[in-house]
Amino acid sequence: MIKVSVMYPNTPVPRFNHEYYRDKHMPLVKARIGESCKPYTVDKGLAGGAPGAPATYVGMCHIFCDSVEPFQAGFGPHAQEIMADIPNYTDLTPVIQMSEVVVG
Amino acid sequence: MIKVSVMYPNTPVPRFNHEYYRDKHMPLVKARIGESCKPYTVDKGLAGGAPGAPATYVGMCHIFCDSVEPFQAGFGPHAQEIMADIPNYTDLTPVIQMSEVVVG
Repeated sequence: MIKVSVMYPNTPVPRFNHEYYRDKHMPLVKARIGESCKPYTVDKGLAGGAPGAPATYVGMCHIFCDSVEPFQAGFGPHAQEIMADIPNYTDLTPVIQMSEVVVG
Repeated sequence: MIKVSVMYPNTPVPRFNHEYYRDKHMPLVKARIGESCKPYTVDKGLAGGAPGAPATYVGMCHIFCDSVEPFQAGFGPHAQEIMADIPNYTDLTPVIQMSEVVVG
């Protein structure tokens, strides 16, 4: 199992519409990637590790897939449509990473 | 529900013992935090978002709790012991953040 993490770096005054991200963007991603991927999680950054420190990421999602190939096969053909939806909720550029799920 | 994310920034040649992290460190954290926190996940970074790009984080864990208070109450008294175990698997300094679980 792998996890695709999409993490939006926080800024002093980030534009990030958490409701749109939860209700529109992520369901769009899920619909386009299809059944080859498992359910996803969505996080809203609250705070950093040190007292008073801001969250490093204002928002994150983690998408679970059996392996990298089904994610790429599902995402690739719809990448342009999915990327074109990002300005509807943020102008931040996400950090993306793929991980092996060691403990799931 | 909140999620505490502990993310170890990757380096060209990171020292990170994934087996120790999975088999020793995270079970220690879980044992010390106790039942006030839900199960955790552990990730091993595979790749970045762009072709050939490295993973931003070599390893991550995400610990689920009902709220910030039970995490702090469970972690606080054992912070010194838990932190002292980190050099056993890495010399990296983790990025820590707390998030609200929007979709879990």
